[in-house]
Amino acid sequence: MSKRTVYFISDQTGLTAETIGRSLLTQFNVPDFDCSTLSFIDSYDKAVDVGKQIDNIASISGMKPIVFISFAKKELSQEILKSNGLVIDFFGEFIGALSDELGIEPTFQQGTAHGIADFKSYDRRIDAMNFAMDADDGHTLKNYDTADIILIGVSRSGKTPTCLYLALQYGIYAANYPLSDDDLESGNMPEVLKHFRSKIYGLTISPERLRKIRLERRPDGIYSSHQQVTYEIRAAELLMKKNNISFTDTTLFSIEEIASTILSKSDIKRRAL
Amino acid sequence: MSKRTVYFISDQTGLTAETIGRSLLTQFNVPDFDCSTLSFIDSYDKAVDVGKQIDNIASISGMKPIVFISFAKKELSQEILKSNGLVIDFFGEFIGALSDELGIEPTFQQGTAHGIADFKSYDRRIDAMNFAMDADDGHTLKNYDTADIILIGVSRSGKTPTCLYLALQYGIYAANYPLSDDDLESGNMPEVLKHFRSKIYGLTISPERLRKIRLERRPDGIYSSHQQVTYEIRAAELLMKKNNISFTDTTLFSIEEIASTILSKSDIKRRAL
Repeated sequence: MSKRTVYFISDQTGLTAETIGRSLLTQFNVPDFDCSTLSFIDSYDKAVDVGKQIDNIASISGMKPIVFISFAKKELSQEILKSNGLVIDFFGEFIGALSDELGIEPTFQQGTAHGIADFKSYDRRIDAMNFAMDADDGHTLKNYDTADIILIGVSRSGKTPTCLYLALQYGIYAANYPLSDDDLESGNMPEVLKHFRSKIYGLTISPERLRKIRLERRPDGIYSSHQQVTYEIRAAELLMKKNNISFTDTTLFSIEEIASTILSKSDIKRRAL
Repeated sequence: MSKRTVYFISDQTGLTAETIGRSLLTQFNVPDFDCSTLSFIDSYDKAVDVGKQIDNIASISGMKPIVFISFAKKELSQEILKSNGLVIDFFGEFIGALSDELGIEPTFQQGTAHGIADFKSYDRRIDAMNFAMDADDGHTLKNYDTADIILIGVSRSGKTPTCLYLALQYGIYAANYPLSDDDLESGNMPEVLKHFRSKIYGLTISPERLRKIRLERRPDGIYSSHQQVTYEIRAAELLMKKNNISFTDTTLFSIEEIASTILSKSDIKRRAL
């Protein structure tokens, strides 16, 4: 059977429509949809063309495309709503209730949801990203002073992607410290981190998953051996427990989930959004 | 007047609820909302507590909190819907229509929208991020072979954040090349890039904005002088035009918008999602 066509359409990036759409689609046990994002459909002519495209696929495949839209301009969404797709228009659905409750009219201006609306908040995200890159893997220890959070864990436990995500998404200054052989052997808090206890958060991972990740980077040697990953993880967890460091197992977690967990379990505050 | 309270609530990360919520709120000309994300509200007791919290704020402030929810489990959303907030439940609103059209029942399992549902696709994002970090600012030219896209532009035009975002969000292997003084003077395509024309995409920026960004990094010297930034940008744009390189002005664009623009204007394909 052919795959069902899914569109995420917007006069802006389409990220909102895509987020909603993918979130709803995960609720259906369908192996695969044929998804496309159509960004910047910001004129009447473009919207009419997209409408025709939807009708076309509906008639060829005999199945209505599922269409998630997020348009600020009503006249553009109207064109898509006219088509033969199943059009999910969360904007049209909820803006009225929100307007009534707030007691003000919507501006119907093109969304700034993923835009640069606020330069200050935006610059903070970029600064945080530069910070994360400069501070990656303990290259510049002096950065721990200005860090909002310092992630610790064994090599390849997910520290770097989490730092970058915290920076790009929330403007958080995230540094990281890879636990060394000496740290793991002694079980003591690394000397350089002793003054920053309140901002330390740990990541751990299952030996099987860590081994798989390390094998892809360095297929040979001790680094990715079963014995070594098991030892490192056990020692790291002991160190964190002994020193009362909160930690999260990243094995079954995406970066987004790890970041959300850290935000909800620790006291660090977002600097952007 | 006190700020209106806004909640984004979910049994998972809450990223979907937050994306929808912020997108809708940008349509109202309100200087500031008091926003909080409540992640992992995944038990009946937690949901009841949150409901009480909403009622509490409603009665103290005299204003209904605006509540965006994204729960897979109906019994949890029911608890929040009972509260005195204006509850926007996009899930409850649309899942029925979607189920009818697809002809299958929703699983009502906790969403995997921001989860690690698919290890392969997830690993591609992490690999792409490692690639972007390794390939940052032309340190390892050999990476251009495996890159999906190579961003060119003057220093601080937005190449690195865009590369990292393309990697983390879409699993795209993005490298970048900072145009050198020699490149700008000659106006010719850099020798190392000559074999990769089809994957080159340019970024440009306004002199005022670039100057502001550079001043924060290095307040003194030629690097951030008006004359230098104006010269570099003009020369870079000339080089890109002369060599038929598509380019985008990042001045008023967020990373998300730059990434979406590149995806819609070029032929590169996502490797994840």
